[in-house]
Amino acid sequence: MKSVGVVVEYNPLHNGHAYHLQEARRMSQADVVVAVMSGSFLQRGEPAIISKWERAEMALHSGADVIVELPYAYSTQKAQTFAEGAVRILNHLKVDCINFGSEIGEIESFIRLVNFMHTHKDAWDELVRNQLQAGVSYPRACMEAFNSLDHHESILSLSEPNNILGYHYTKAIIDSDFNIEAQTTKRTSANYHDPKVTDHPIASATSIRKKVMSEKGDLTGIKHVVPYVSMNILERYQHEYGTFHSWDLYFPLLQFEIERSSIEQLREIYECEEGLEYRLKDTISNASNFKEWMEALKTKRYTWTRLQRLLTHVLTNTTKQEMKAITSEPLPYIRLLGMNPKGKEYVNLIKKNLDCPLLSRFAKARGTMAAQDDRIGKIYAAPLAMKGNIAALKRDYTMSPIMIK
Amino acid sequence: MKSVGVVVEYNPLHNGHAYHLQEARRMSQADVVVAVMSGSFLQRGEPAIISKWERAEMALHSGADVIVELPYAYSTQKAQTFAEGAVRILNHLKVDCINFGSEIGEIESFIRLVNFMHTHKDAWDELVRNQLQAGVSYPRACMEAFNSLDHHESILSLSEPNNILGYHYTKAIIDSDFNIEAQTTKRTSANYHDPKVTDHPIASATSIRKKVMSEKGDLTGIKHVVPYVSMNILERYQHEYGTFHSWDLYFPLLQFEIERSSIEQLREIYECEEGLEYRLKDTISNASNFKEWMEALKTKRYTWTRLQRLLTHVLTNTTKQEMKAITSEPLPYIRLLGMNPKGKEYVNLIKKNLDCPLLSRFAKARGTMAAQDDRIGKIYAAPLAMKGNIAALKRDYTMSPIMIK
Repeated sequence: MKSVGVVVEYNPLHNGHAYHLQEARRMSQADVVVAVMSGSFLQRGEPAIISKWERAEMALHSGADVIVELPYAYSTQKAQTFAEGAVRILNHLKVDCINFGSEIGEIESFIRLVNFMHTHKDAWDELVRNQLQAGVSYPRACMEAFNSLDHHESILSLSEPNNILGYHYTKAIIDSDFNIEAQTTKRTSANYHDPKVTDHPIASATSIRKKVMSEKGDLTGIKHVVPYVSMNILERYQHEYGTFHSWDLYFPLLQFEIERSSIEQLREIYECEEGLEYRLKDTISNASNFKEWMEALKTKRYTWTRLQRLLTHVLTNTTKQEMKAITSEPLPYIRLLGMNPKGKEYVNLIKKNLDCPLLSRFAKARGTMAAQDDRIGKIYAAPLAMKGNIAALKRDYTMSPIMIK
Repeated sequence: MKSVGVVVEYNPLHNGHAYHLQEARRMSQADVVVAVMSGSFLQRGEPAIISKWERAEMALHSGADVIVELPYAYSTQKAQTFAEGAVRILNHLKVDCINFGSEIGEIESFIRLVNFMHTHKDAWDELVRNQLQAGVSYPRACMEAFNSLDHHESILSLSEPNNILGYHYTKAIIDSDFNIEAQTTKRTSANYHDPKVTDHPIASATSIRKKVMSEKGDLTGIKHVVPYVSMNILERYQHEYGTFHSWDLYFPLLQFEIERSSIEQLREIYECEEGLEYRLKDTISNASNFKEWMEALKTKRYTWTRLQRLLTHVLTNTTKQEMKAITSEPLPYIRLLGMNPKGKEYVNLIKKNLDCPLLSRFAKARGTMAAQDDRIGKIYAAPLAMKGNIAALKRDYTMSPIMIK
């Protein structure tokens, strides 16, 4: 069986995602699509709008055959670590190729970019260091460094944020010498980056979440940009749990946590660097909502997403020590979130030769990463528990992988 | 000016308390009554029903002339530490005597008990140790040890919980050789320990809180057991802040905190001993309210109040290290919560010779105890902030001592 891997967040799954799944299958001529999906908290440092179980269900209804979880230790990370974690999982699952979306839709550009960056590594490192010392944010330093490099070949620009993830997927495959073919699907529409949902059937996940939140959970305005089943699942989640998840839902807990923590405790949190612990403490008491606080916290040195990731780690009590322990050891397990009969056939085929166990039951997980994932699941559910839904705290233990026919 | 000190919680201030203030003044023939009052969290490990500012106001209207705060490092402690902290503060404030309520109403009994315990210290220590090794709670060990001592004199029983605080006040005065006279006022009515509010004008604070909470904040049923001004202040607080404070209000935060903390972090919390950190973790996910959880947590080895104090320290992130640092250094300041003109006259008289500063503005406080008190105030207010009242987080900085004419 031929397989293609995709790296996804589905926050929530929309028409653009469904198109990508279709195209990944068509281009790779794969029998099975394996998706590695971020769990509860995402790459930009945000809680997922609904839980991973419901997002996995959406994926199975839109063309994915197997869904596994990208654990917190990789899901809430800068592009490089995120991509490396995801590609490593897809390699464990023996995919033949990995397909990602891009504006250019042409894989040779990414391969050339990886090679170019490889030959210019030393110059690049020094340029980035100089930029950082000048006090700008990491992404901006990368962009400036890239523009300063001597481009005698015409290559894809690494100063375009949309190319960065694709670059890191391709680089992770090449650097690890994985037997995986990189492929890219051209994004279908400029609307993908529109800040607002328009009449067009394609809209970005960000614009969709914004629309839902600004309309207080009313889903009418996104009906034409998400598949029918996604819509049903969103409605069901809202009915069952009474809310969607956004930073606003977690802000009171985060505020409590920062008031409660000592400077020393904040300093131990992953990504809390260069005295950010003082800045957190100094600004928190005056904030009355998340956005207002972020605006007070923001400096030239840190991007919004860099700060959001830090705040996610504060909320979840993720320390430097814990992250180091998890990311420096081999992946202890992969969690299966869902599959269909075709996916099951594939899993049965590969599972004899897996060098990393594929878990259907979380209760069997052990070790530092399991302790982290257990905590993350409970903290994601904490606002639901506070509204009286104690059972939500235990979904990691009570849920079996979603199976569809 | 002659002065009498009292140690109080006023949770809330009721007719019995007003009677005690009157009697303390009459018996001591003092010109001024100085009350040291627990701040936000109390000796039995509970949040105060309303904030210290409003409780200080109640006290000024019921016969106290000066109110200062018993800081968290002493207020949420076993009887001995609580009493020692309070007596030390009253000594700093140069009171001539200290008056406490008791069933027996006769100070000689307490003095004899202190002397008896002093001469039987070694036997007592061994008896308590043996009892503790048998796995009973500390208060029970003390009771059994006391009953095993050779009582050839007729003395007050230390196995009566109601005598324990009085014993420790008296002992703290004698042991430190303070120039303070101990006095006790006989409690006026057996109703003081009634579990329920009756028709009688005297009821215990516990029964009053229970009544208010069981009637969802309706105050009608306690009108006859609290002074008119206390009633008005309770009504005003409820109107202004929308709630009274009880463990139920803080339970969701506590649950979140225990899910979020690592075993190692819980182990660092003050009073977390003998593997209690595992017990906290093991029982928390199943609990849907505070009482239910306490019942799951309770063992023969720990009293309800001992566990409640631990949970208060978990909620407030109070570590062994912090408590040791604070209680091993001289008291850095005393916070003034309120006074009337008579109280002000007294404060002006003593303030030239104080060896510990009496602060009217918390912003001037520095050091480990100040950092703790700052945090405690914010955590006490956290549920109010979560309902949108961000200003409540800053009352320690925005409030001046309550002054009445």
